Amino acid sequence: MTTPLANGVHCVMATPFLPDEALDLASLATLIDYLVAAGCDGILILGVLGEADKLSDAERETMVRESIRLSAGRLQVSVGITHGATAVARERALAAQAAGAAAVMVSPPPGSAAGPALRQHFVRIAEGLEIPFIVQDHPTSSGVRMPVEFIAGLAPDLPANSCVKAEEPPTAPKIAKIRELAPSCQILGGLGGVSLLSELDAGSHGTMTGFALPDVLVGIVKAHQAGDRAQAKRLFEAALPLMVFEAQPGAGVALRKEILRRKGAIAHATVRQPAPLPDPVSLGILDDLLASASVRVTA
Amino acid sequence: MTTPLANGVHCVMATPFLPDEALDLASLATLIDYLVAAGCDGILILGVLGEADKLSDAERETMVRESIRLSAGRLQVSVGITHGATAVARERALAAQAAGAAAVMVSPPPGSAAGPALRQHFVRIAEGLEIPFIVQDHPTSSGVRMPVEFIAGLAPDLPANSCVKAEEPPTAPKIAKIRELAPSCQILGGLGGVSLLSELDAGSHGTMTGFALPDVLVGIVKAHQAGDRAQAKRLFEAALPLMVFEAQPGAGVALRKEILRRKGAIAHATVRQPAPLPDPVSLGILDDLLASASVRVTA
Amino acid sequence: MTTPLANGVHCVMATPFLPDEALDLASLATLIDYLVAAGCDGILILGVLGEADKLSDAERETMVRESIRLSAGRLQVSVGITHGATAVARERALAAQAAGAAAVMVSPPPGSAAGPALRQHFVRIAEGLEIPFIVQDHPTSSGVRMPVEFIAGLAPDLPANSCVKAEEPPTAPKIAKIRELAPSCQILGGLGGVSLLSELDAGSHGTMTGFALPDVLVGIVKAHQAGDRAQAKRLFEAALPLMVFEAQPGAGVALRKEILRRKGAIAHATVRQPAPLPDPVSLGILDDLLASASVRVTA
Amino acid sequence: MTTPLANGVHCVMATPFLPDEALDLASLATLIDYLVAAGCDGILILGVLGEADKLSDAERETMVRESIRLSAGRLQVSVGITHGATAVARERALAAQAAGAAAVMVSPPPGSAAGPALRQHFVRIAEGLEIPFIVQDHPTSSGVRMPVEFIAGLAPDLPANSCVKAEEPPTAPKIAKIRELAPSCQILGGLGGVSLLSELDAGSHGTMTGFALPDVLVGIVKAHQAGDRAQAKRLFEAALPLMVFEAQPGAGVALRKEILRRKGAIAHATVRQPAPLPDPVSLGILDDLLASASVRVTA
Repeated sequence: MTTPLANGVHCVMATPFLPDEALDLASLATLIDYLVAAGCDGILILGVLGEADKLSDAERETMVRESIRLSAGRLQVSVGITHGATAVARERALAAQAAGAAAVMVSPPPGSAAGPALRQHFVRIAEGLEIPFIVQDHPTSSGVRMPVEFIAGLAPDLPANSCVKAEEPPTAPKIAKIRELAPSCQILGGLGGVSLLSELDAGSHGTMTGFALPDVLVGIVKAHQAGDRAQAKRLFEAALPLMVFEAQPGAGVALRKEILRRKGAIAHATVRQPAPLPDPVSLGILDDLLASASVRVTA
Repeated sequence: MTTPLANGVHCVMATPFLPDEALDLASLATLIDYLVAAGCDGILILGVLGEADKLSDAERETMVRESIRLSAGRLQVSVGITHGATAVARERALAAQAAGAAAVMVSPPPGSAAGPALRQHFVRIAEGLEIPFIVQDHPTSSGVRMPVEFIAGLAPDLPANSCVKAEEPPTAPKIAKIRELAPSCQILGGLGGVSLLSELDAGSHGTMTGFALPDVLVGIVKAHQAGDRAQAKRLFEAALPLMVFEAQPGAGVALRKEILRRKGAIAHATVRQPAPLPDPVSLGILDDLLASASVRVTA
Repeated sequence: MTTPLANGVHCVMATPFLPDEALDLASLATLIDYLVAAGCDGILILGVLGEADKLSDAERETMVRESIRLSAGRLQVSVGITHGATAVARERALAAQAAGAAAVMVSPPPGSAAGPALRQHFVRIAEGLEIPFIVQDHPTSSGVRMPVEFIAGLAPDLPANSCVKAEEPPTAPKIAKIRELAPSCQILGGLGGVSLLSELDAGSHGTMTGFALPDVLVGIVKAHQAGDRAQAKRLFEAALPLMVFEAQPGAGVALRKEILRRKGAIAHATVRQPAPLPDPVSLGILDDLLASASVRVTA
Repeated sequence: MTTPLANGVHCVMATPFLPDEALDLASLATLIDYLVAAGCDGILILGVLGEADKLSDAERETMVRESIRLSAGRLQVSVGITHGATAVARERALAAQAAGAAAVMVSPPPGSAAGPALRQHFVRIAEGLEIPFIVQDHPTSSGVRMPVEFIAGLAPDLPANSCVKAEEPPTAPKIAKIRELAPSCQILGGLGGVSLLSELDAGSHGTMTGFALPDVLVGIVKAHQAGDRAQAKRLFEAALPLMVFEAQPGAGVALRKEILRRKGAIAHATVRQPAPLPDPVSLGILDDLLASASVRVTA
């Protein structure tokens, strides 16, 4: 009944802001065009990189509505709906579904723990949904560790074609184990792509992450899926220095927005305060990394 | 220009829910009447006990509007507006002020640290406000420790009559130190009242907390302010077993709602899921404690 | 084969230091005499209050040897042996047993989680021990939450007469649940005694905690065990203001040592640096609380 | 007076164990020879990778004595001495100095915070030392964030030639800032080398980290110091996939020991329990990464 997410690249999307920190809908349009042109299969809005914890509910609704409208069927739009209350997350899930979202993504609420209460939280949110449900397994942001057995045990009670965004390192062995215990489950990697090659080797169906050069992610995943691992590896290794740099804790969002700005995808690199701004040293490194990554990827 | 909060008791208010977890506005009315009858000077809505992290923005707005309307001038209504973004917290502050709130309260966003960026966050939210700004110092919920010097240093850049809700134990010495460094600052205790007597001795101007027998808090604070410390102590010690029991981590909200239900202040003890429910052992203890507390307080 | 710990009061003992922070063995002798005189059944050395994380291994060994020697059979001496490595904790357990300890106590290593690996850690340490093994369940210091089912499931693989130090609040319902699932397990409360009465009501066999007036703990537990709950309650409520004050996070060790010093149990209130020292405000409160507690307990 | 650490590569050394988890001194000898042959300037023993928190004091002493003896002047031996008590850390510092250590390294104790008390802790440990003092800035293991101003402010009160191991990402801008504020301070990078190139660009004097192919680190640092940044970059990028893989949280120690075993540097990949063991998936990835890294580095 549910339509599965494409096996491929779902870009975790930044939320563009004007210099005064208001939503920048003009940049939202150019950003989505940029992601379409890069060959992405879908986007995930209102995730960590999307500064979801810095938006009001009204802004969330605007982002959902406008992202779907501007994608115009060219991208599957998944929506982060994490919230501390089951009832509110469920309301968000239903609203996203009604607006035309391709899937909803939920991370464990802060202070929860893998166990019956968290299971109940996920299952109640997902009840009767007609779009896939993505369980985000990212202990760095949620503070919650979910064993493979817990995650695999959720599958029977989630909608068909549900998915795991596997982001507890080391990711490759965890992905292999989930594939074994819950073979019907779709698995996407994340973490900025720094382990993308080994995740694909371990059986992931693609990635859902925010690396600012999404065409590179698309190239890696397509090559791997076409059986050309050598090419996937070549592209991955060329991108890795930038991936690692971008994925450094405490730097990510502002740096990624700066890259998007330089690529013309958005007009301003504004992040909502309070948040660290990129320093001159990091911006200098970025110049160097972008030059290298571009040369080699396009070679 | 700003009207100060009363020196006295500001009850941290629960958010009443129906059995299906929807807002229970009928109980909101009876709860406010209960707090007025108890002699409270004010209430703080949308705090931790108010399950603020489990409400949608629309529900927040309803709570602000209805609490102020139902209080009808009988209580000062302070509003918790903590949010991860300066811009959204500021929007909430202005909305609360426009709705007639007596003050707004802000806790440091998760992951922040005492320093220039956090200072800037507070100051930008407070800019131009015409009601007091309450800095909540509760590391247990925020994860952020603020030294006395940092808190005192905020005072000059906050609206007149601004306030600290001092909840980093041990509270008494911290209150004494803030009084010394920022004499114009109003200071209210919290933490369920378990250190109320020593907080008053140290110079606090009252308390802002959620103990479910607010008439007892009022009795303690009034006696202390009238110079009858012996009576304040007698009342405090009679209430302490229940205060300690209520304030246990992992039990608080559901237990307090159960007491409020038994007192007739609200119709249902529902807490939003996921959350622990009171177990039979705790409910049995509650019977015993309530009986004891009532006897002695009314004696 | 193993000798059980007494059902009663096991005082968590401070480690006395000279003003230069060296071990103060003369005070160790007077402290042990004080605890014997108070009617304690046993002591727990090298716990959190014993500043175990601030001692060298050589100092640990001295504390074990001298505490057992000075107790001279008048007290059961339990020894905290928590360590990050199974192998080292086991070595410590065997050394404590050889030295004449009554039991050993282990808390989960930092970063561990309830599951097979932690279970294996406990079971390997305990293998073949001929003294009881105490599982300390104190998430505030360990950072690890252990569900009731996990704790109860350990019992069959630990030595006979093994024990749980139940310190995850709310403690009473957890104690009742462990009694139900592992009826052979001995259970002692802790947490400074602030929930002692409800813990005994819930079926605990006594307490293992560091309240600085241990004669009061003995009075409460004896009265309760003798069926005189009203007297237990009277004593508990008289002590509670001091218990709550002592148990405040960030104040405990130094304040308790100061009380012990005033009682003549130790010569110096020195705590090892870095650690907060008691401030004048807290010392003033202490004067008042000690006066009140003494009057009423001796009444 | 003090002898500075060499500007170059100080390898963070694993502690070799026999299959029964006892110290493996034969492997210690071969490991040191391996690091000498790789061209390292020094080693850091008893760090996180050295499983320092899983050793007894007696084992620590053995490691210090034997590492210095086996190095036989071929390597500078720095010693991790982090401890919860100032007094014990100082005792360890003096013992390491007496044994012939080149430097001592200290990380903030758990639960501490940048401020006067932590400053006092460092300064008291370092008082009168005649070897450099290394401040380890690694919030991931210590839980403590130290602003640049705090770190730079320590320099005047530490021994001459003292050093910072800069491991708070993003590392490059922090290194540049420390260089600016404390120009006399030596700065070494870490974090498995994943940001080594940008750290050197930002002014670091080398690295102190545990990447299992130390000859590669040496090649990168030497090329950079000789002004051949292109060669440094080539080597860095060839090593990066393995560096990233090794540095994944939850995998590091066991994987690095496995590489060292395969290289013949140690006889067994044993890690002390409790600790995760490498899974078959990770071991498979390692085969692939090692093959790639070797080919290209030696090309």
